[in-house]
Amino acid sequence: MTRPNLQIALDHNDLAFALADVVKVGEIVDILEIGTILCLQEGHQAISCIRSIFPNKKIVADTKCADAGGTVAKNVADAGADWMTVICCATIPTMEAAKKEVEELQVELYGDWTFEQAESWKSIGIKQAIYHQSRDALLSGETWGEKDLTKVKKLIEMGFNVSVTGGLDVSTLQLFEGIDVYTFITGRGITAAKNPVQAANDFKNEIIRIWGE
Amino acid sequence: MTRPNLQIALDHNDLAFALADVVKVGEIVDILEIGTILCLQEGHQAISCIRSIFPNKKIVADTKCADAGGTVAKNVADAGADWMTVICCATIPTMEAAKKEVEELQVELYGDWTFEQAESWKSIGIKQAIYHQSRDALLSGETWGEKDLTKVKKLIEMGFNVSVTGGLDVSTLQLFEGIDVYTFITGRGITAAKNPVQAANDFKNEIIRIWGE
Repeated sequence: MTRPNLQIALDHNDLAFALADVVKVGEIVDILEIGTILCLQEGHQAISCIRSIFPNKKIVADTKCADAGGTVAKNVADAGADWMTVICCATIPTMEAAKKEVEELQVELYGDWTFEQAESWKSIGIKQAIYHQSRDALLSGETWGEKDLTKVKKLIEMGFNVSVTGGLDVSTLQLFEGIDVYTFITGRGITAAKNPVQAANDFKNEIIRIWGE
Repeated sequence: MTRPNLQIALDHNDLAFALADVVKVGEIVDILEIGTILCLQEGHQAISCIRSIFPNKKIVADTKCADAGGTVAKNVADAGADWMTVICCATIPTMEAAKKEVEELQVELYGDWTFEQAESWKSIGIKQAIYHQSRDALLSGETWGEKDLTKVKKLIEMGFNVSVTGGLDVSTLQLFEGIDVYTFITGRGITAAKNPVQAANDFKNEIIRIWGE
């Protein structure tokens, strides 16, 4: 079992605050995510500024693209993103158009997606999926459970590299023990911590403790 | 039957070009849309610049929001948007959170949405839906047909104010004759025209010809 990646979601309203956080923890984590909120607030500059500070890190633009896949993907790639997210209810032509412009595409799973749809994503060569606990669902009281883990395992069995996200903290990681998670994504788990560097290291060390070096 | 609105979708990659187009046709159309591509490229400035030029026009931010509804909606409202779009596969808690922050929410219909889902949007007080021919679907050869019109009519019967968009031109509008469409949305139908002012007037005059003043 490969050690899962750690991804920081930069979901700030403001590029200045995002930069302040990412310069502290960017080298500790494996993947830098320009979150949807930040993309919508600051535009392509959010990607290009973070790319210029971290020329060699994997960067994902969390556009949750639903249409105009080719244009959105070309724009984020031009700004410096390696990967981009598309929303699960986007059409296959949208995903195909986006796929041509970025290194890899990640499908964000929200609402009532089906494994039949997941097969169609695989059939066009998409390798990554993101299993989500919606932030708003978490705020309204839903949490991680066996139902989620079963779906995550099934996606992995289908051959997807599966990232998981939503309300994760260091103590939640052990829920996934024995599961070949590709990436754990956390935003506030690091950025809202008193000491973000400590929080990033705590996440990383817990991943190493459970999955090995 | 009320005369449908005309909405321009500003889907430029670049705020400068969007501004050049919107100052020409903004007063002719009824609603100004900051398109997804423009939101992702230029951030909140795209909204606030256009708001400052058109203090009294209805402005919609086409964020296609899938999560963090409260934050995204507050941000676009702060920048000057009246309405915001959410994607149909967003969860109900996301839509509810967004709804609190903007005047009205529009659900963008992509992929495999159901009328059962539409009932749940209505039950939380959402009044608007956008029926879409995906740009990428159009590029891959799909077009407007009876199947689409039947769905549009059913949504209207359910009580939604339904906007239609995707590959519309002046000659396509008559397809909707007799249907109580709330808004026709076009981007390139106006912005890619040789004479955008003429194109906007042509759309408006055709709407008046079919639906009356």
